Amino acid sequence: MAKNDTAKKAIALHKKLGGKIRIAPTMQIKNRADLSLVYTPGVAAVSMLLALSKSKGLQEKLARDYTIKGKMVAVISDGSAVLGLGNIGPYGALPVMEGKCALFKTFANVDAFPIVLDTQDVDEIVETVCHIAPAFGGINLEDFAAPHCFAIEERIKARLSIPVMHDDQHGTAIAVTAALLNAAKVVKKDFKKLKVVVVGAGAAGTAVTKLLLRAGIKDIVVLDSRGVLDTKRPAHKKELAKKTNPRKIKGGLGEALAGADAVVGVSGPNILHAKDIQKMAKSAIVFALANPTPEIMPQEAKRGGAKVVATGRSDYHNQINNSLVFPGVFRGALDNRVSKITDAMKLCAAHNLAALVKKPTAQKIVPDPFEKGVAVAVARAIK
Amino acid sequence: MAKNDTAKKAIALHKKLGGKIRIAPTMQIKNRADLSLVYTPGVAAVSMLLALSKSKGLQEKLARDYTIKGKMVAVISDGSAVLGLGNIGPYGALPVMEGKCALFKTFANVDAFPIVLDTQDVDEIVETVCHIAPAFGGINLEDFAAPHCFAIEERIKARLSIPVMHDDQHGTAIAVTAALLNAAKVVKKDFKKLKVVVVGAGAAGTAVTKLLLRAGIKDIVVLDSRGVLDTKRPAHKKELAKKTNPRKIKGGLGEALAGADAVVGVSGPNILHAKDIQKMAKSAIVFALANPTPEIMPQEAKRGGAKVVATGRSDYHNQINNSLVFPGVFRGALDNRVSKITDAMKLCAAHNLAALVKKPTAQKIVPDPFEKGVAVAVARAIK
Repeated sequence: MAKNDTAKKAIALHKKLGGKIRIAPTMQIKNRADLSLVYTPGVAAVSMLLALSKSKGLQEKLARDYTIKGKMVAVISDGSAVLGLGNIGPYGALPVMEGKCALFKTFANVDAFPIVLDTQDVDEIVETVCHIAPAFGGINLEDFAAPHCFAIEERIKARLSIPVMHDDQHGTAIAVTAALLNAAKVVKKDFKKLKVVVVGAGAAGTAVTKLLLRAGIKDIVVLDSRGVLDTKRPAHKKELAKKTNPRKIKGGLGEALAGADAVVGVSGPNILHAKDIQKMAKSAIVFALANPTPEIMPQEAKRGGAKVVATGRSDYHNQINNSLVFPGVFRGALDNRVSKITDAMKLCAAHNLAALVKKPTAQKIVPDPFEKGVAVAVARAIK
Repeated sequence: MAKNDTAKKAIALHKKLGGKIRIAPTMQIKNRADLSLVYTPGVAAVSMLLALSKSKGLQEKLARDYTIKGKMVAVISDGSAVLGLGNIGPYGALPVMEGKCALFKTFANVDAFPIVLDTQDVDEIVETVCHIAPAFGGINLEDFAAPHCFAIEERIKARLSIPVMHDDQHGTAIAVTAALLNAAKVVKKDFKKLKVVVVGAGAAGTAVTKLLLRAGIKDIVVLDSRGVLDTKRPAHKKELAKKTNPRKIKGGLGEALAGADAVVGVSGPNILHAKDIQKMAKSAIVFALANPTPEIMPQEAKRGGAKVVATGRSDYHNQINNSLVFPGVFRGALDNRVSKITDAMKLCAAHNLAALVKKPTAQKIVPDPFEKGVAVAVARAIK
């Protein structure tokens, strides 16, 4: 939870604003002549242009040219895993989704609108999102809990021809990969030869692991609350177990961390301690990304011998936050009209993001989201 | 269809704009301190405030205070009856819905967002709209065809605690009632004693008839393409037949119009002629509202003896258009946090709208949508 004064200020600000986004017309409507162009009768010509085009594909293309579809992203949540707050439903999710829409505009001039769903049923979610998709050029799924987030994303992607991205998975994976690329430079180790431990096998942990594998890292061990994943786990964890843990480690955190070069925490507060970090290899890299309370506080990680420490928080060095990623991803997706965000694009985005830090140091492995060029660098990868 | 030059201009304008609305943050996000209030960690306090409130009703109330729910209307269409263009689907509908959202903002400072649906199945439409409702303070259904529009509106209204209005029905009914109140003054006849013929028994015709009955008119005859409605018609037409036609007229337009004081056309182009109008009572009132081509052109209606003529077009006197109504209805609904828009409110809105024309004449029975005070007058009724 936020510190008390931040919490109070945030509540007062939200009450004053009454919504963090608003709608603005893109032209002034001052008289009947204007009205006859933006509305009836003139608009009928545009409607017929779209409706008469021969195929659905051509309709979608023209809709991108003539309507908001060319620039509008839906930020959609069912409120099942909001921040670190858990399953708090659509009303609890709405302030977060609005905030995300405000960041989309601020960081990348992407128009984004929040949709919160009054259902947590996978079939209903998939149907609802697909039914409202025509007005949008992209869909950012947000704060859907694992494991239902995996099926939801896959099924929606299969049905739509616009890019769909569950940001808790892929935004996090891109940011972590970028940070780890630079952290490896700081500790002067070969990125691909890093021994990495991922703590947490939810949405973020799963996607981080997959993208790090794709980036060329061979030795990744993934843990959930029961310990190192094995192939007796159900569904997506079984799949993950098959792809990871080449040294066949069994057990818990202690076994996994012994000799590891990096640990990526995407689980919950205070589950790591200095003595755990001490078991890691020299110049350990510790990403403690649970929000708002990390798996281990930076001071304690340092005491355990960590060389590079990052969190999700803005009040420490090295904030690994999705806001480095999602604005640029959708900026690129819209500009280049891509229909899918591929693993190759995600990896390229991670490299572009990492490259923005010219000389990585232990205190600076990722750019600040307010630095110029962050969204542009990420967007360049999405084509 | 619009005249050629209007059509060309409209297409060029839409291409240039690439969407008639955009998203704007309501505050500048310039640094990490701002970020920590609108997004994590500060936003978590607002999310918890909403999520921890005891009942769904209280959650909704707080959401109106702290999020866009207090100001945002969804403008939703399935594209099944767009303008006079017919069933042209979601992409054809989108430019119209965007235009409507631009008018909401221009005329009443209501934030409105367009949603177009990739389904025309009643169950799917109802489910989809209800599932996305939490972020909205009101729902404007638009361009849904009859008869499925009736079931859709009723079922959504029954499930949600925010106002839901199918504008093709009720916006039209309010505008027509206001216009007829003033037209009766112009021809110096008692409004409640008018003999009215409604041509068209779709969404608009049905709602117009019901609101005129509610306004106290006793003698209304409704026709569809097969003639005067009788109780052998299916579903909503049977219901309408039971409530209307006290003189038990049988037949078609000729029989219905004989001696009528007013005719309201909400059907299709060119179905009325001067000889039809000649059958009406002295000082006939003719509302020919089919768009863009009316049931009868004003010149011809005058030739047939009409005293007051109105259309839906901006290039003739007396434009009866929903844009006089919907911005104010939702302005009032949001400001007063009403959960339903009742018949009493609609009737009050019609009276308020009519009263804006201090001295009605044959050339001016309704205000211009650009006149100051239109939305405010309508909004005052919705409480």
